[in-house]
Amino acid sequence: MHGNAVGTPKLPDTVLYGVSYYSEYAPVDRVEQDARMMKEAGINVVRIAESTWGTLERSEGVFDFTHVDRMLAAFQKEGIKVIVGTPTYAIPTWLAREHPNVLVVRPNGRAQYGHRQNMDITDPDFRRAAERVIIKLIEHVKDNPAVIGYQVDNETKAYFTSGPNVQAAFVAHMRKKFPDLEKLNMAFGLDYWSNRINDWADFPSVNGSINASMSNAFADFQRGLVTEYLTWQADLVRSRARPDQFITQNFDLGWKDYSYGVQPEVNHWEAAKPLDIAGVDIYHPSQDKLTGADIAFGGDLTRSLRNGQNYLVMETEAQGFPEWTPYPGQLRLQAFSHLASGANMVGYWHWATTANGIETYWRGLLSQDYLPNEVYAEVKTVGADLQRLGPKLVNLRKKNQVAVYVSNTAQAGFDAFKVHSEGKTLSYNEAMRPYYDALYRMNVEADILSPSSTVPLSNYKLIVVPSLYAASDAEIAKLNAYAKAGGHVVYTFRSGFADEHTKVRYAVQPGAISEAAGISYHQFTNPVNVTLDGNPFGVGKEDNKARWWMEFVTPTTAKVEARYKHPSWPAYAAVTRNTYGSGEVAYVGFMPSDAVIEKIVAEHVKRAGIELPKVRFPLIIRGGTSQEGRQVRYLLNYSAKPQRMTYGYGNGTDLLSGQAVKRGQSFELKPWGVSIIEEN
Amino acid sequence: MHGNAVGTPKLPDTVLYGVSYYSEYAPVDRVEQDARMMKEAGINVVRIAESTWGTLERSEGVFDFTHVDRMLAAFQKEGIKVIVGTPTYAIPTWLAREHPNVLVVRPNGRAQYGHRQNMDITDPDFRRAAERVIIKLIEHVKDNPAVIGYQVDNETKAYFTSGPNVQAAFVAHMRKKFPDLEKLNMAFGLDYWSNRINDWADFPSVNGSINASMSNAFADFQRGLVTEYLTWQADLVRSRARPDQFITQNFDLGWKDYSYGVQPEVNHWEAAKPLDIAGVDIYHPSQDKLTGADIAFGGDLTRSLRNGQNYLVMETEAQGFPEWTPYPGQLRLQAFSHLASGANMVGYWHWATTANGIETYWRGLLSQDYLPNEVYAEVKTVGADLQRLGPKLVNLRKKNQVAVYVSNTAQAGFDAFKVHSEGKTLSYNEAMRPYYDALYRMNVEADILSPSSTVPLSNYKLIVVPSLYAASDAEIAKLNAYAKAGGHVVYTFRSGFADEHTKVRYAVQPGAISEAAGISYHQFTNPVNVTLDGNPFGVGKEDNKARWWMEFVTPTTAKVEARYKHPSWPAYAAVTRNTYGSGEVAYVGFMPSDAVIEKIVAEHVKRAGIELPKVRFPLIIRGGTSQEGRQVRYLLNYSAKPQRMTYGYGNGTDLLSGQAVKRGQSFELKPWGVSIIEEN
Amino acid sequence: MHGNAVGTPKLPDTVLYGVSYYSEYAPVDRVEQDARMMKEAGINVVRIAESTWGTLERSEGVFDFTHVDRMLAAFQKEGIKVIVGTPTYAIPTWLAREHPNVLVVRPNGRAQYGHRQNMDITDPDFRRAAERVIIKLIEHVKDNPAVIGYQVDNETKAYFTSGPNVQAAFVAHMRKKFPDLEKLNMAFGLDYWSNRINDWADFPSVNGSINASMSNAFADFQRGLVTEYLTWQADLVRSRARPDQFITQNFDLGWKDYSYGVQPEVNHWEAAKPLDIAGVDIYHPSQDKLTGADIAFGGDLTRSLRNGQNYLVMETEAQGFPEWTPYPGQLRLQAFSHLASGANMVGYWHWATTANGIETYWRGLLSQDYLPNEVYAEVKTVGADLQRLGPKLVNLRKKNQVAVYVSNTAQAGFDAFKVHSEGKTLSYNEAMRPYYDALYRMNVEADILSPSSTVPLSNYKLIVVPSLYAASDAEIAKLNAYAKAGGHVVYTFRSGFADEHTKVRYAVQPGAISEAAGISYHQFTNPVNVTLDGNPFGVGKEDNKARWWMEFVTPTTAKVEARYKHPSWPAYAAVTRNTYGSGEVAYVGFMPSDAVIEKIVAEHVKRAGIELPKVRFPLIIRGGTSQEGRQVRYLLNYSAKPQRMTYGYGNGTDLLSGQAVKRGQSFELKPWGVSIIEEN
Repeated sequence: MHGNAVGTPKLPDTVLYGVSYYSEYAPVDRVEQDARMMKEAGINVVRIAESTWGTLERSEGVFDFTHVDRMLAAFQKEGIKVIVGTPTYAIPTWLAREHPNVLVVRPNGRAQYGHRQNMDITDPDFRRAAERVIIKLIEHVKDNPAVIGYQVDNETKAYFTSGPNVQAAFVAHMRKKFPDLEKLNMAFGLDYWSNRINDWADFPSVNGSINASMSNAFADFQRGLVTEYLTWQADLVRSRARPDQFITQNFDLGWKDYSYGVQPEVNHWEAAKPLDIAGVDIYHPSQDKLTGADIAFGGDLTRSLRNGQNYLVMETEAQGFPEWTPYPGQLRLQAFSHLASGANMVGYWHWATTANGIETYWRGLLSQDYLPNEVYAEVKTVGADLQRLGPKLVNLRKKNQVAVYVSNTAQAGFDAFKVHSEGKTLSYNEAMRPYYDALYRMNVEADILSPSSTVPLSNYKLIVVPSLYAASDAEIAKLNAYAKAGGHVVYTFRSGFADEHTKVRYAVQPGAISEAAGISYHQFTNPVNVTLDGNPFGVGKEDNKARWWMEFVTPTTAKVEARYKHPSWPAYAAVTRNTYGSGEVAYVGFMPSDAVIEKIVAEHVKRAGIELPKVRFPLIIRGGTSQEGRQVRYLLNYSAKPQRMTYGYGNGTDLLSGQAVKRGQSFELKPWGVSIIEEN
Repeated sequence: MHGNAVGTPKLPDTVLYGVSYYSEYAPVDRVEQDARMMKEAGINVVRIAESTWGTLERSEGVFDFTHVDRMLAAFQKEGIKVIVGTPTYAIPTWLAREHPNVLVVRPNGRAQYGHRQNMDITDPDFRRAAERVIIKLIEHVKDNPAVIGYQVDNETKAYFTSGPNVQAAFVAHMRKKFPDLEKLNMAFGLDYWSNRINDWADFPSVNGSINASMSNAFADFQRGLVTEYLTWQADLVRSRARPDQFITQNFDLGWKDYSYGVQPEVNHWEAAKPLDIAGVDIYHPSQDKLTGADIAFGGDLTRSLRNGQNYLVMETEAQGFPEWTPYPGQLRLQAFSHLASGANMVGYWHWATTANGIETYWRGLLSQDYLPNEVYAEVKTVGADLQRLGPKLVNLRKKNQVAVYVSNTAQAGFDAFKVHSEGKTLSYNEAMRPYYDALYRMNVEADILSPSSTVPLSNYKLIVVPSLYAASDAEIAKLNAYAKAGGHVVYTFRSGFADEHTKVRYAVQPGAISEAAGISYHQFTNPVNVTLDGNPFGVGKEDNKARWWMEFVTPTTAKVEARYKHPSWPAYAAVTRNTYGSGEVAYVGFMPSDAVIEKIVAEHVKRAGIELPKVRFPLIIRGGTSQEGRQVRYLLNYSAKPQRMTYGYGNGTDLLSGQAVKRGQSFELKPWGVSIIEEN
Repeated sequence: MHGNAVGTPKLPDTVLYGVSYYSEYAPVDRVEQDARMMKEAGINVVRIAESTWGTLERSEGVFDFTHVDRMLAAFQKEGIKVIVGTPTYAIPTWLAREHPNVLVVRPNGRAQYGHRQNMDITDPDFRRAAERVIIKLIEHVKDNPAVIGYQVDNETKAYFTSGPNVQAAFVAHMRKKFPDLEKLNMAFGLDYWSNRINDWADFPSVNGSINASMSNAFADFQRGLVTEYLTWQADLVRSRARPDQFITQNFDLGWKDYSYGVQPEVNHWEAAKPLDIAGVDIYHPSQDKLTGADIAFGGDLTRSLRNGQNYLVMETEAQGFPEWTPYPGQLRLQAFSHLASGANMVGYWHWATTANGIETYWRGLLSQDYLPNEVYAEVKTVGADLQRLGPKLVNLRKKNQVAVYVSNTAQAGFDAFKVHSEGKTLSYNEAMRPYYDALYRMNVEADILSPSSTVPLSNYKLIVVPSLYAASDAEIAKLNAYAKAGGHVVYTFRSGFADEHTKVRYAVQPGAISEAAGISYHQFTNPVNVTLDGNPFGVGKEDNKARWWMEFVTPTTAKVEARYKHPSWPAYAAVTRNTYGSGEVAYVGFMPSDAVIEKIVAEHVKRAGIELPKVRFPLIIRGGTSQEGRQVRYLLNYSAKPQRMTYGYGNGTDLLSGQAVKRGQSFELKPWGVSIIEEN
């Protein structure tokens, strides 16, 4: 199924509504009671077994499938499907005791036992033990008809493994990449501070490196370890599984107290290749901070990993952190928002909150009392709706005209030299997300592209490329060629600055973008009291300021859309656009306010020939084509107040209420309300 | 004398007014001069020798008592009594060199030599050396008539000792407590993240644990080590001391830049058992931040350790930190405030400031010049008053109607999951102290109870139980039974949430309190812009807000005293009270402002049938019965302005001025002033 | 040339205008092109080779001088002089691999390879390797006529080396200093917390010490290691170099995000002795934060190291940090400001920015594109001016009447017990610099003295002694004797508090200053809401407050110039002055606002009989006597606005414009403008 962008045939033909479940953690034996409660709430899928290795294999080679068997039996009885997770991301006590070497060695030393994700995923003893438990588990469960698929490991990363074994593997890897050591010295600038390597035997530990070319090559190598490890697990599972069972992983995004951006430790595009379908967890702020943007971004990214294939939300919050307890209505809104992005599953982590351990306050659907609560009551309403509407809502297809381009390499480069200003720092994700979020607020749906994407750029009318700090010549050439052929590209500050080795280009900046964008600059600064001359975007005073970064851009062939104003600085260009071949390349040489970003993006959406929707946040409209070929639109009210809009699409039916909706009619959404309109 | 709650017969029949003294640290030989200066100031007791092991025993087994002998001679000559401290809390250089293993191994590695309190109190080599120096010292000094008692060690803790030896002892201890390993796995929820222990041999180091049940069991074990160690020292000293000499320890409280709350590393109730009398150090803010609350809390807690027995303030500040230099008058106010809580001794740390070392700016009574200063002049006035009034003021007896209930186990549980809100955290002590402080400000005196207390709960009309996060069923049952029998209990948020193993209860919350309080809840959140509906306590707008935590309480049988108000939340109950048997149980499901706490507490003081005093902070009134059987009241002005009150008690005499005071007369206290009225 | 205060005969008779250059780091071979571009810009000197050991010596004993040879050839061809740096401060990979022991052991463990300045400068293997590369390099380059001098190592320090070998050397050093161990115990107060050392064999590692006497003795020992190491390098280089070549070092100052104050890790006065001329790097804020004060302070200090001898600015920023990108005009202003302090060289670090490595954003004159930019254009104008005016501007002589007295020992003492107030801390440099800065703003030029200075104090009319926390009796006696003989001294708070061992004096405070200043105090505090009574300096309300520290000073013979005011404190003296012999000693017992400091300093400048200039910051006037014996004055406008002044000196010529300037004429300076007036 690799690269298959159409549907996910191994999955049920309805939306999966699920929870993670651990009878192992339950205070009493209550799996049958829980299965009944789930059934009542419309839960139709449960994920089990990941992180319970210690219960499954109680000492080396001694297995106990009691919990798994009881769960499978109970769920099968209630008609609930099961996704079985390989239990490898939390190792048992006996494994750490017998093979202390399985504990990961990080730059600050060997990990202690206790935490999950504390193993060296390259360690042979770990692999041997993992292989044994995976095989045993898959063989034990695969024939149960309730089991529809597998999750390999969980939120996998390399955990910064960097002991002598990994160092040796990295050196071997580099030697392969740079057979000529001198080329490595040159590419990484190792002459600096005497760091040059004159003999492979002299290669020092990367842990002490002060060279971002080296550190980022190592980070890239570590991302490669993740792909290799997941491929190994997927192949292992596939070799034992039933052919109709799917394989997924639960990816997690870059974290900023919640799921926020690109995951720096994994190349999700590469790591998704060995899977049948991508899975993801999306955790986001709630209450007054609920905007839906994080749900949309996480969904758009995950859907893009396999070229538009639908995906599974393996985990999202029901109650979550204490400050995330949802207002009445928010849980419904969230569930349908996931579907609006193309999710085929919404899974809560997890059924009930653990009574001990570090996640006691990362709360599940139920509290530790396992009793129905306000959240359970709301889940029930979603479950009932999905039972009815699932087949209509599953396998939503999108065809977006806009893409946002992201890159692990650019992220590593940008974040090796984060922008500092007035004691604060700006990360890659913080430079990128505001562009995505501006599109989101304007109801312009987008795909997410990366250097590993295989979808043709020509599918899109507009590609926004925020801060592509580090990229190969070929990569930039591809983007420029897209523009030349008629596409629209918006590059933002620091794009093109360094090559794929985080080496700053020996060239007029912005490097290979310079000609396409029709601009050049030699210098930059952190702007203080710099505004845009004449308030060209008509925003408030504070929003008209330049923030964080400011390049001294002068146009060559470009038209200047905005200039800076400051008592001591010349009036360098702030925003430019350049006709390039049959297309256009815009450049934003600073970090604008959110308000200005929205104006810039709106302008270029329009210039790319895309119609800008009339409604905007807090009214969110997202949709696509159902598997029956109908237009389905989710109308989502991300506010505590009722919102009224003029329904501007084809006549249809509000699937939740069953009422007809006519083009041009006035339509009201309740606070945190949702409607789903299927066109006739 | 264990458990003897009446007086302290081995102590002099007057108030001890003292200093710690170290002729070892003096810049020149001036012990006789210092003794004379002390005598002039009314100092009648000196603590010596603790922390001077290196001077006493200059190499293994080679003792030099010159300093001790000179001090004893000088103080005896001036009629000053001496408390001798065992010198074990700061080890000599030779011991660390000869036995590096005596240095404590903490989770971050073995301690370096230099700091005090850097030893493993369980290490056999340490114990052997400690035993030798203790025996030598006691035998050397015990026959000197000036020596009235001993302090065993100082501010003792386990110093987070957690090396392999302590880990092994902990595992043995757990094995004894949980002969059935499966019960441990269940009680601690070790299945979570594969942490289950299938064989005692697999028991991983606690240092890496992500399980608060485990970490808190270890912390409890460490507290046990402190009790064991102090018992060992006390027994050792007692076996050599004269029978008329007492044994004490210098406990220190939980620290928040000053002595603030419950000490998490020691169970003071248990550790006080091997002593004859409890000692404590109390350090507190000064200048405009001087409120007396910390003096009162520390005193009430220490007095409660041995059921109302008077106690010794072994250390308190004279000058202290630079920001604590007292305003004129404050030192007098502080000294008498200690007596007002039942202290039989006020000791300053220390006579003169050290000229080198880490405490150069933790200043004594004198500065490094050893010359009379402003503080010395004020101490002289206190000394003179105490010389005259000591026998009237010593052995103050209290009979309080209110108690505040605290617990090491609850503290460990609460603090393992501190409440977070808007980037700040709330600790157990910060959730508890505002309730004590509200009582203090209203001049309602209180005892402090803990699970180790042996005093009958029925002694009290009202017990305030702040955030009893973790407690056994039996412990809660005892509190509920007290209420049922007619008592009044005020529980606050998170009480009853977890059992004694920090395992969240598998029950309707607040667990065993639910029925008694007549309420239940399943969910909670951090309140943002949540107020109390209708401002039920009549406080200012800001004070009417809910802070930190908010439980979704619904009453079953309780009466709701206050409800929340918020645009999106239902109106859950904020404060409830419930008739329970012949008594009443109130519940406060959030963290109110100090102003609201005071209103709630005032209401329940009154409901418990206790008269609420008319004067309040900054006028503080505290007192009890003197050993002559008279009512003694301390009137304390904690403000920079004169305060006038109507004297509302029986006719008496102002002991300090000698003037008669009549019921109903107007009475003025100077800024930071104090009066002591003995009723006729 | 040691101690030679007149000129620097080995240097060219013009101003050196230079860059550091590393063809090793260049992206392509472009040394000849760069040399041409430098020549065009007026660059006449280049520093090379420091930090490129790995390129020079590619494996043990295998040398490759290609880069050095090509650079020498290219610069010689363009008539550019060369300063060759020994490459020892960044070690090659092979050295760390073959001799892991060369990596420094700090208190937190052995350094990893990667960073510069990561070696143990006392390690014999390091010394052996350093000696070999130094000799090879010097012998290789010395006969090239372009080579005018050498820089030994770079920004040398001891890097906190504190492994067992250094500990042993320190103990040996202490044993020599304190043959009687008992005297050490007494001097350092080691009895405290049992830290006494009864046998040299028991001497514990300094790393764990809680005793500032010990830690500061170790810091002093480490500073001695730097002096010893630089002497060793200088002797080694001198033994090989041509006699007409000079030896310098690149000192760096105490750092506070920029060059700010006294360097705590080096005694610059001692370390400058083995050199022929002192060098320094000065990095400072720019844009609106450019004041010139940091340039002036760094220059005054470096000029003072060798009694007024001119000095070399080996490094300063061209672009620097992103937030330091200079406004148009600032680079010129900075360059001439260095000369105004007596610099004979202004060198930029560095020619072009590195494309990789940790300093990618510490930008050189050129960006990574090696193309002319705005900065290069401005440098060209400076270069052209210097080509013309260099011989007139070189070897500026100053004769200052005011000195600021600083001390490594005082700094170590002060900073061991930094002043804390309201959660912030005040360091020695932060207590000292405001006094220097006040002089700077008033255009009163000053020298910098230290205990190592050999210039007679009687050269000065006024010596300001900020916070001389720790000093020997002899040192203070010398200052007092200066005053007694007619000098003026202003001591500030905490001066005289401790002796040279950071032991607080057993004496009335401020110790030996007490009599000279005619004051005494026993106590102090952190002032809160304390003002100066009656606003004696006529400043704004906020500026009239006492900050940080406040001593309870009472005069004995002194006149009180200002008193504190506070509701609860007595009116202690804040500022005093005392006639002492034929001179005067003032004392400032607190940390005033900058505005009050300026008033106090102005008052004492006048009392010392020095005329106070009429213009003040942002108009800065600095100057001296040229080697032709003429008065040369730099008029510097440190503001973004034009500034007008009445020219109040002798008739002369504006060297930059060539125009005549007459006494009394109105004179305007452009924003960030500079004029240099040579009197006729």
